[in-house]
Amino acid sequence: MVASEIRALFAVASRPEVVSLAGGMPYVTALPLDLVGELVADLVATRGSVALQYGSGQGDLALREQICEVMRMEGIEAGPDDVVVTVGSQQALDLITRIFIDPGDVVLAEGPSYVGALGTFSAYQAKVVHIAMDDHGLIPESLEETISAVQAAGERIKFLYTIPTFQNPAGVTLNEVRRRQVLEICRRAGVLVVEDNPYGLLGFDREPLRAMRADDPEGVVYLGSFSKTLAPGFRVGWALAPHAVRQKLVLAMESAVLSHSSFTQLAVGQYLATQPWREQIKSFRELYRERRDAMLAALDVLMPPGCTWTRPGGGFFVWATLPEGLDSKAMLPRAVAERVAFVPGTGFYTDGDGKRHMRLSYCYPEPDRIREGVRRLAGVVEQELQLRDTFGTGSMPGHVGVDTPGPDLA
Amino acid sequence: MVASEIRALFAVASRPEVVSLAGGMPYVTALPLDLVGELVADLVATRGSVALQYGSGQGDLALREQICEVMRMEGIEAGPDDVVVTVGSQQALDLITRIFIDPGDVVLAEGPSYVGALGTFSAYQAKVVHIAMDDHGLIPESLEETISAVQAAGERIKFLYTIPTFQNPAGVTLNEVRRRQVLEICRRAGVLVVEDNPYGLLGFDREPLRAMRADDPEGVVYLGSFSKTLAPGFRVGWALAPHAVRQKLVLAMESAVLSHSSFTQLAVGQYLATQPWREQIKSFRELYRERRDAMLAALDVLMPPGCTWTRPGGGFFVWATLPEGLDSKAMLPRAVAERVAFVPGTGFYTDGDGKRHMRLSYCYPEPDRIREGVRRLAGVVEQELQLRDTFGTGSMPGHVGVDTPGPDLA
Repeated sequence: MVASEIRALFAVASRPEVVSLAGGMPYVTALPLDLVGELVADLVATRGSVALQYGSGQGDLALREQICEVMRMEGIEAGPDDVVVTVGSQQALDLITRIFIDPGDVVLAEGPSYVGALGTFSAYQAKVVHIAMDDHGLIPESLEETISAVQAAGERIKFLYTIPTFQNPAGVTLNEVRRRQVLEICRRAGVLVVEDNPYGLLGFDREPLRAMRADDPEGVVYLGSFSKTLAPGFRVGWALAPHAVRQKLVLAMESAVLSHSSFTQLAVGQYLATQPWREQIKSFRELYRERRDAMLAALDVLMPPGCTWTRPGGGFFVWATLPEGLDSKAMLPRAVAERVAFVPGTGFYTDGDGKRHMRLSYCYPEPDRIREGVRRLAGVVEQELQLRDTFGTGSMPGHVGVDTPGPDLA
Repeated sequence: MVASEIRALFAVASRPEVVSLAGGMPYVTALPLDLVGELVADLVATRGSVALQYGSGQGDLALREQICEVMRMEGIEAGPDDVVVTVGSQQALDLITRIFIDPGDVVLAEGPSYVGALGTFSAYQAKVVHIAMDDHGLIPESLEETISAVQAAGERIKFLYTIPTFQNPAGVTLNEVRRRQVLEICRRAGVLVVEDNPYGLLGFDREPLRAMRADDPEGVVYLGSFSKTLAPGFRVGWALAPHAVRQKLVLAMESAVLSHSSFTQLAVGQYLATQPWREQIKSFRELYRERRDAMLAALDVLMPPGCTWTRPGGGFFVWATLPEGLDSKAMLPRAVAERVAFVPGTGFYTDGDGKRHMRLSYCYPEPDRIREGVRRLAGVVEQELQLRDTFGTGSMPGHVGVDTPGPDLA
């Protein structure tokens, strides 16, 4: 499937009768919308001439101070001078890549990794080399071996891109021992670490983990976001970077957009200053925990034998693996015909891997819909297994179109 | 002066006692802030779950339809499918440059041209070649000769970047005959035109000019913005592009920031849908016309002989030329010491030109402050002329610091 086919498919998948386990949209309806409305009105009334004007390329100073307070929850000690506010953390990724990457440079990334990051790396013609993961995150030995092999081949590694906590798409978390090992390996090899942490405060079972940046201020660029703890519609993210990198980031920011929206920055600042934001994050955690529980329970009961999946301790995603011989991308049109959608695994790799995998999100649908979605998905996998057992393969790539759904071939 | 010195100087220049004729900030306080406040509160109350959520990479469809209506005022017939909403038109510039430029490619631009565009072109390692201008905008013969010379030298021209209407910084407007000539020259030479038009609706003396894009939908990428007709704090701009370019723009947009803020897009959409925006633009026009008149009248009365300047028919800027032997950048520290600031001309060229020029903005200060600023400026130029007549030169670059102001040397 090419990009346009995937777009067509997701257009169908966005119909209300389809349970989408595909998107990573936070459940913003859980916010106190009346209070947010009052807050932005108050902002325009009291500080309209600032909120509606151009701002600085680095971002609003008061907001950068508040961001430092948010990061303190993960053990980070930093000052506002080292923070750059960006248009979502996606823009921070884009600017970091712009600064560091020349065509052909190597970026190390977990396999699987966030599709939006892989797209940005490839837009700058970086070569992505994946590092193997298990249920405790990326494997230090694999990282060390890969660095040696890449450097021995004469290639330049610019940075390791990692989502250590509640990873997208795998849902796993790098444990504390490995965090220290990964930092040590990267320090020895002279490889910068880009720590992307949009989900860190959304853990279900314990206090926030200590960020990698907390233990290595000079070796780590940390990316954060209000998209999951408040709302993505403001597009307010940030980078915390060592001083020399931060200076380059501000220049790149000015070249890219002049400055971020003063309005949305001040709205986020006002929210943090006047609302019980820690309580709101707690209520998001409870909401998403209930949905994760619904998904895991449904998977346990309904999925055919031979399927496996991760058990996330926070964040938005479960990463599922299908039995041998099945292809999640080839299966997607049939799934959509059965009114359930997911993201096939291949998009999370740059090397063609991921065919037997899929990302299932539990962040947006309500628990009953999640259960119904998993029920439909399990039925589709059952059919695929019957096809495999009859013909030696499940759905073939490209053979099942959106308009000629599965049952015709079953 | 290096960038850090300029920053230090402008930090001083932002003190309230300094009349800044430097910045290009629109006068947003003229907006009906109470109505804007109600409007954003209403937006959250009625459409919060959309305004706070991720949006599409191309931008909100309803807003793109409204943008087409805005562009119709300049004779442009276009559909929303060819519009991409961007983080200010600066981002549109960045994405266009990203798509088209390989290092060493040539961009043609008026001399002088917008400093933010020149910065972006240089960030992508484009080579900027300036085209001469006069009071009627860029000179077609100069464009034609430059294209021939550049192509004869075996260099690749990717596009002509032009601000045809109320140009930044020159304040001049490309007349209608020349618009046709420029389009024809570029069409023949296979050179794309990037028409940047943030000020087009802010004309003082007549109805909006017909955009170049209106006469050549396939040869022109048009950039627009709500920063000057509404407020820069939303950072909502756009590109209207031929279909193949538009597709690449959307992909580049998604890679750069995923999507623009739904909140600010919907706020602008709500403003256009519920407020008398044409009347608001009219009132901005009257406000800026009064300020332009104040500046031109003060310049006429106060500036020493040998100085010349443009007479803008709209927009924000006057471009002034100093007598032979003076250097506007060297003069700036003395001017700041005398409590007036401007932007020296060299920043608007990539080839070192512009020493005798400066940009004077009349958009932000009130008329009385403009008159006072010009009075101070005229005094500084007088002193410079005395220096020149005594020593054969005005202030020398680097010899006059912010903390050792002019009078010590006079």
